[in-house]
Amino acid sequence: MKYYLGIDLGCTNIAAGVVDEEYRIVGRGKVKTNVPRPAGELVADIVRCGQMAAQAAGLSLEEITRVGAGLPGTVDPVAGVLEYANNLYVSDLPIRSLLEEAFGLPVCVGNDASAAVVGEALAGAAKGCRDVVAVTLGTGIGGGVLIGGKLYEGFNYAAGEIGHMGIVAGGRECTCGRRGCFETYCAAPGLIRSTREAMDADQGSALWGLYRESGKISGRTAFEAMRLGDASAARVVEEYIRYLAYGVANVINIFAPEAVVMGGGVSHEGEALLGPLRQLTAKEVYAKNPQRQTKILAATLGNDAGIIGAAFLQEAMSASASGPAARA
Amino acid sequence: MKYYLGIDLGCTNIAAGVVDEEYRIVGRGKVKTNVPRPAGELVADIVRCGQMAAQAAGLSLEEITRVGAGLPGTVDPVAGVLEYANNLYVSDLPIRSLLEEAFGLPVCVGNDASAAVVGEALAGAAKGCRDVVAVTLGTGIGGGVLIGGKLYEGFNYAAGEIGHMGIVAGGRECTCGRRGCFETYCAAPGLIRSTREAMDADQGSALWGLYRESGKISGRTAFEAMRLGDASAARVVEEYIRYLAYGVANVINIFAPEAVVMGGGVSHEGEALLGPLRQLTAKEVYAKNPQRQTKILAATLGNDAGIIGAAFLQEAMSASASGPAARA
Repeated sequence: MKYYLGIDLGCTNIAAGVVDEEYRIVGRGKVKTNVPRPAGELVADIVRCGQMAAQAAGLSLEEITRVGAGLPGTVDPVAGVLEYANNLYVSDLPIRSLLEEAFGLPVCVGNDASAAVVGEALAGAAKGCRDVVAVTLGTGIGGGVLIGGKLYEGFNYAAGEIGHMGIVAGGRECTCGRRGCFETYCAAPGLIRSTREAMDADQGSALWGLYRESGKISGRTAFEAMRLGDASAARVVEEYIRYLAYGVANVINIFAPEAVVMGGGVSHEGEALLGPLRQLTAKEVYAKNPQRQTKILAATLGNDAGIIGAAFLQEAMSASASGPAARA
Repeated sequence: MKYYLGIDLGCTNIAAGVVDEEYRIVGRGKVKTNVPRPAGELVADIVRCGQMAAQAAGLSLEEITRVGAGLPGTVDPVAGVLEYANNLYVSDLPIRSLLEEAFGLPVCVGNDASAAVVGEALAGAAKGCRDVVAVTLGTGIGGGVLIGGKLYEGFNYAAGEIGHMGIVAGGRECTCGRRGCFETYCAAPGLIRSTREAMDADQGSALWGLYRESGKISGRTAFEAMRLGDASAARVVEEYIRYLAYGVANVINIFAPEAVVMGGGVSHEGEALLGPLRQLTAKEVYAKNPQRQTKILAATLGNDAGIIGAAFLQEAMSASASGPAARA
């Protein structure tokens, strides 16, 4: 059995896992990311985290075939450079060579959303599918695109920025400088903003009680209040899903993938989200052939998708028509 | 020298061209499409048109290596079936086998927007580019997607429906059933609608003079009146280009192609359209690396893109990761 080390570099935690050839995580490590701090320290902690995972798996690093790392930012996988990651406070970091030196192993780096879609397609919701788009609803909206089983990242590795697809011309301001980006309506902060607006408009809403109990408004607040029968919350959820369906229908009309995999915090709402999402999206999809409709699935691996996908990033890249191999 | 026959089946005309290995059209044929009528007659006229082109090239059909046809609708290129073409009044037509029998030659069929992007990438504006999206502004908006030099059509051959990407949630009604589709603002009828609205709001506009002269409002009317110094027309054009930039920025954020090729009638406005389009789009694109920005180009082959691309459809399909070859 061969073993691969997958690393998911998040802005809060570094998570590592030793993954076997059957996509099982057989050892884990986790350390705080603790940014901002010097890149050398960050790299040292990534390696420490990987060593923890190897140790938990009862393996030495020499028994690991290869390391893969999913990074939160723009990554040039050919040069092995983390070009820009605003939340890590780094730019133009030659992270592959730093990791290769520190691990003494071959390393493959890629974007974290790319790692997630690879994980879900290898071992998760989209197992066996070759054309898959992963839509991850978090602080922003991440997009990972698999075409013919290989990552599609575009000629400058910036493809799949689904969160920055405009769906409301002239709409909400986005941090990217545009207006009406998908993520301004459908990432967690967008949902929180809508929840807050509904609270302002309805002082008697059950949203207030939940807020007072927990001391905060999250992406779950509106769903919870809706389940308590609150009409304002139900409207927030209804509107949220309407925008989500509008964006997901765009993804389907553009990519016609076998599966769209919905991941991230909000997707934990399960069928309360996915049921209406599927219904609304079906009405908006252009292709009408009932035998060949894109499936909308909930991600099943959670954070493990990023670890498993990172471990197998190399395979998803190596023969991509427009990816690293074609340019190397 | 080998010769290929490319056919562009339009709703008004059937155009055919014999194309040589250097992508030159060396003989042409053209006949009226004349739909609705029985499919058998349509096929016979396609063959007649192809024979005209061969004759004009001084060749017999036996000297043609292969036939390719770009069709206006949803095409399953593996089964060789025109699944649905509302403007031709046909559905589920096994057009490849009908054409192979009539021509006595191997035939490859595909979508017309796919043929156009292949043509522009082989011999036109995007020559040498491997990741290209063609956006054709006509009665609707067609999208052709080339990834790594191969067509991307999605698992059900319905990918690239860029005209049915929603850019204004709750906006203008589209014939597809959605609201706010890109083509409701940026295809010719959308521009004509905006022009008409501006005329209603400004009885003194130069738009009225142009309308009285020509007896009609077209996609060019607003551009022409703008050049006469008309303020209402300038606002129509400004708004039109703003929506166009919004949609094109989406295409870039999603595909990160080397080039977006703008084709179709409206694109004949040239720099009056492309200059401001490039400026506005640049502000909205997510990837900021100035060395690696997507180029926005005007299509250079016009209707010939569809003929040349059709002639070489087979090459663009044969090794596609998710296309026919992978499934055949």
